[in-house]
Amino acid sequence: MGDLLVTLPFGRLASTGMAKADVLTPQATDFPQWYQDILAKAELAEGGPVRGTIVIRPYGYAIWERMQAEIDARIKAAGAQNAYFPLFIPESYFRREAEHVEGFSPELAVVTHGGGKKLEEPIVVRPTSETIIDSFLSKWIQSYRDLPLLLNQWANVVRWELRPRLFLRTTEFLWQEGHTAHATEQDAHEYALRILRHVYEDFMVNVLAIPVVVGRKTDQERFAGATTTWSTEAMMRDGKALQMGTSHELGQGFAKAFDISFLDQTGQKSFVWQTSWGASTRLMGALIMAHGDDAGLRLPPRLAPVQVVVLAVRTEEGAGEAAAQLAASLRGAGIRVELDARTELPFGRRAVGWELKGVPVRLEVGPRDLANGTVVLCRRDDATKTPVRLDEAVNEVGKVLEAAQAALMAEALKMRSERTVEVSSLEEVDEATQSGFAMVPGSLLTSGDGKGEQRLNAAGVSVRALQRPDGSLPSPDEDAAGLVAVVARAY
Amino acid sequence: MGDLLVTLPFGRLASTGMAKADVLTPQATDFPQWYQDILAKAELAEGGPVRGTIVIRPYGYAIWERMQAEIDARIKAAGAQNAYFPLFIPESYFRREAEHVEGFSPELAVVTHGGGKKLEEPIVVRPTSETIIDSFLSKWIQSYRDLPLLLNQWANVVRWELRPRLFLRTTEFLWQEGHTAHATEQDAHEYALRILRHVYEDFMVNVLAIPVVVGRKTDQERFAGATTTWSTEAMMRDGKALQMGTSHELGQGFAKAFDISFLDQTGQKSFVWQTSWGASTRLMGALIMAHGDDAGLRLPPRLAPVQVVVLAVRTEEGAGEAAAQLAASLRGAGIRVELDARTELPFGRRAVGWELKGVPVRLEVGPRDLANGTVVLCRRDDATKTPVRLDEAVNEVGKVLEAAQAALMAEALKMRSERTVEVSSLEEVDEATQSGFAMVPGSLLTSGDGKGEQRLNAAGVSVRALQRPDGSLPSPDEDAAGLVAVVARAY
Repeated sequence: MGDLLVTLPFGRLASTGMAKADVLTPQATDFPQWYQDILAKAELAEGGPVRGTIVIRPYGYAIWERMQAEIDARIKAAGAQNAYFPLFIPESYFRREAEHVEGFSPELAVVTHGGGKKLEEPIVVRPTSETIIDSFLSKWIQSYRDLPLLLNQWANVVRWELRPRLFLRTTEFLWQEGHTAHATEQDAHEYALRILRHVYEDFMVNVLAIPVVVGRKTDQERFAGATTTWSTEAMMRDGKALQMGTSHELGQGFAKAFDISFLDQTGQKSFVWQTSWGASTRLMGALIMAHGDDAGLRLPPRLAPVQVVVLAVRTEEGAGEAAAQLAASLRGAGIRVELDARTELPFGRRAVGWELKGVPVRLEVGPRDLANGTVVLCRRDDATKTPVRLDEAVNEVGKVLEAAQAALMAEALKMRSERTVEVSSLEEVDEATQSGFAMVPGSLLTSGDGKGEQRLNAAGVSVRALQRPDGSLPSPDEDAAGLVAVVARAY
Repeated sequence: MGDLLVTLPFGRLASTGMAKADVLTPQATDFPQWYQDILAKAELAEGGPVRGTIVIRPYGYAIWERMQAEIDARIKAAGAQNAYFPLFIPESYFRREAEHVEGFSPELAVVTHGGGKKLEEPIVVRPTSETIIDSFLSKWIQSYRDLPLLLNQWANVVRWELRPRLFLRTTEFLWQEGHTAHATEQDAHEYALRILRHVYEDFMVNVLAIPVVVGRKTDQERFAGATTTWSTEAMMRDGKALQMGTSHELGQGFAKAFDISFLDQTGQKSFVWQTSWGASTRLMGALIMAHGDDAGLRLPPRLAPVQVVVLAVRTEEGAGEAAAQLAASLRGAGIRVELDARTELPFGRRAVGWELKGVPVRLEVGPRDLANGTVVLCRRDDATKTPVRLDEAVNEVGKVLEAAQAALMAEALKMRSERTVEVSSLEEVDEATQSGFAMVPGSLLTSGDGKGEQRLNAAGVSVRALQRPDGSLPSPDEDAAGLVAVVARAY
């Protein structure tokens, strides 16, 4: 059982899914149904018994583990350290920061009984951890020497969800949440942007192959308790926007509520400036909807838990051995590979199963091709099939994985570019956002007695991000009137 | 901030701790106080605001991440796949398996309100996940082809704790829990033992350098819902036992309660046979108490998040550069290293800080030694200091790390051996377990109207594990009368 090449952990589970009809509802017919279908048929996730909860199945979780590894490495490179704070927070902690409690109160799950007794003070199951972490920062930070203090945790959080949707909005979800404290506003600002750019944007673009609009949230879209929220927003294949990861400047609001202060070099007491930032299993939804097609998932090679599947067409005439050897060579070259030698199942059904799971490259090894010294290389991203010489297959796969990574990014960029239009009035937004993003002069958001943004919202459209006209980031306090608003229908 | 060699993430936090008194209460004076002291002064953990909860600080969490990585690799090698199941479980699920609900009811935390409303059915915060996972296995398992199904999850769980103690008994703790389903009782039995031996024992002995007694629990000490519980038990430096990880055979009890059945090769319907197994942040407590001494933690090199600290005594006369180069060379050799060039702090205080944190090797780089072409190598495990030639330091460190790993294991084995005595009557147990383990004939457990084990319990002693006289594992149903009971006072 110990050998991945033998156990085929993801392949085997796939057989259960494939017992049902293999076909997904086409995206063009019903995109939400396509999404439900792919979750079930690629065995990514299903709903739990308590409303809004999610079960992440092994293949879905393997993808999430790859996301975690990539994000975690970037967070550590940005100097933050992982820690763990309790799931349970006294209800009173939430009331200390006014905007924060107002934002989160409707979403809280509350524990009232523990160990068979009614509790004296109700306990909140964390929806986010600013309050509990800040209560410790207050003790740990005394001097400027303790700053910056840069923490992160990987955790589950709970936000009661009335209209749940797997991965996108679930009552419980998994995420990382960073919490930092700085001596100056400028340092907090720079760190919030460092996370935005070097952790989130870098991961999304270079690993997920998903282009993101990076910008500032409007006041209305800010995180409850933040002074500025920075966001990364991606376009899904139905033209809707999905918020991928956010980085917040918290100012000194929490620092004052939780008394997080320090003595500076001159001996003067100041409150710290803080940031918080998070990305969640929502990224799974983004990945599925940014790249998936009517045949299933399409995973970018840098992320894929299985980059290559070697499919033995038959095991006779040396094909079984050749497939096993090829898989071993690929593995030796550092490629994440699985061997599928389940020749008791129909070949076509196995091939379709690996397409559903979005494995970037499939190598078909059969006696006929082997007689010519070749195997067939099938790319998932563009569905091409090419014979390659067996003795060049490892090299060729390496090149194709790079090419497929780039191709998925190019395709996503092209789609976003084709589906983004500049408009000059709110009236044009409705039509433009039926199929994608609209770029709107920021001045329009406050037009009509300052109610421009609310008019958009009433039409089901929201401001995803504010950017400067040249696409760069505005400053935290730069007036929206001189900026461009990227607006869209959103998940 | 990006470079570990520069940021000294653990070193810097240490400075806060070291501002307080550096000295720990000696183990011989007050072992429990020593444990509390080391948690605080090595900055491992502290209590949360809700009774019994724990905050795991960055250095503690870095150690836990190393444990996770080592255990996770072994679980995957045993063929199990990671997945994630919800934190929230409907209360009714618990009532389906009679022994299980009886065992866990007193420890449950219950959510009664969500999203601002009282819930129709109360929700239990998972204390363990047999019930919710089994409700899905019932859907996923149809045929013998679906077996064995081998799942694991890394998660937080909640068990209301009346006498909490950090890492040892906390209301919320982190763990992995494996859940598997098999076609036959024999296959389930073998898999439970595979996890016990190849995951738990192997990790504990070869990474943690902690010898463990491996054996079967008595009926009374079994997991609620198991037919057989296998355990790994270690001796702490105060002679008490600590249960490290357990692997359970669940029989068909949950399978019948949750209707997990399959069609076998002959078309006959059968219920599956199951196992579950877990190891938790309790391992942190074990690590601390198995190896720690009056100067602080002593981490086995294979586990240590920082294996070597290069301590620049001064930065003048090339010592700063030499220390940085040495750290880079060690890192290049695959060693986990930190550079401590905080020469603004007293040298002795920094050295004591690294000893508290249990870093296996400290290399002191100062101008005087450098003039002779040497640095001083300080071993944490035996407190020796040896000059080594700078150009041989990397090689030498590699050898010393291996030696220190072996030495910690040998020391722990020696202690256990010296503190384990064979006794032939229950009367001798009390004295024997004041300082360590007693080996008792299994027949005594049922002596005195079958109340031998209860008599031990009344004296504060419990049966940790049953073994055959030759130390091997008994079968699940082997009569205790022919076995040896390892008994001890326990955490």
